[in-house]
Amino acid sequence: MGIDPGLVATGYGLVGPATPRGLAVLSTGVISTTRDLPLEARVHEVYEGVVKVLDALTPGLIVLEDLYTEYRFPRTALMMAHARGVICLAARQRAITLLALSPSEVKRAVAGHGSASKEQVQHSVQRLLQLDALPRPSHVADALALAFTGYSRAGGRLQ
Amino acid sequence: MGIDPGLVATGYGLVGPATPRGLAVLSTGVISTTRDLPLEARVHEVYEGVVKVLDALTPGLIVLEDLYTEYRFPRTALMMAHARGVICLAARQRAITLLALSPSEVKRAVAGHGSASKEQVQHSVQRLLQLDALPRPSHVADALALAFTGYSRAGGRLQ
Repeated sequence: MGIDPGLVATGYGLVGPATPRGLAVLSTGVISTTRDLPLEARVHEVYEGVVKVLDALTPGLIVLEDLYTEYRFPRTALMMAHARGVICLAARQRAITLLALSPSEVKRAVAGHGSASKEQVQHSVQRLLQLDALPRPSHVADALALAFTGYSRAGGRLQ
Repeated sequence: MGIDPGLVATGYGLVGPATPRGLAVLSTGVISTTRDLPLEARVHEVYEGVVKVLDALTPGLIVLEDLYTEYRFPRTALMMAHARGVICLAARQRAITLLALSPSEVKRAVAGHGSASKEQVQHSVQRLLQLDALPRPSHVADALALAFTGYSRAGGRLQ
């Protein structure tokens, strides 16, 4: 399962054992938090949402975007890291292995180069996973790109 | 209770109802995490440590250092924010009110100016709380400075 962490919206996408058509997308979604609530309430919403998803889908591996520090908006990055903290906690509490991949690694794996745009990632994910429609929002496309890359790295050996 | 969040070490300090000598320091400590463990394990240690402290000391208010973005070390700031996220979660799960104060606000309140050094904060906290020794490490001094400032702001009306 790939998770694209964010305080406003956290995308997730679960891919499963390869079918004759290729890797199957088993579930996708976005955990959104309530605007205007204080930070701690939103962090709590992210945690509760992730816990619900993990307990329902029981992924064998979680692939998260790695920490990287070249953010254009430091405050947004710090808020993302709050969400990422509680996602790490939820995974650890369930003994689910975490893999952290950098955005450029994931972009290279799905789109061929490390500086692919959001749109290029969406189109690449659609093609690689043979989806009928473009994965939207981009949080879901990013989560599926993480899941795809992590699954490939793990050699497809996961349940 | 003041909490100075950090992934390596999180300081806390609980101050209580004023005694004839002034505000009383009821408890202080540091929650340290195990070097060399992966991020998610350390985040889990911070969470478990904070939960234990909150359940033992049942503070009426938690005062946390506010997000600020002028960090010299962005990666350290992002790791701190992971710890801060699970601290926010632990507080929210117990319905404890959180107050966020900026470092400069706290320094101004305890040491008279917003750019006080770590040593100046330690000495100010020692004087204000009439401690026999300098509060150490600086995480504890910072946590007590947060608690002192938050308590003053709340008008000393908290349990």
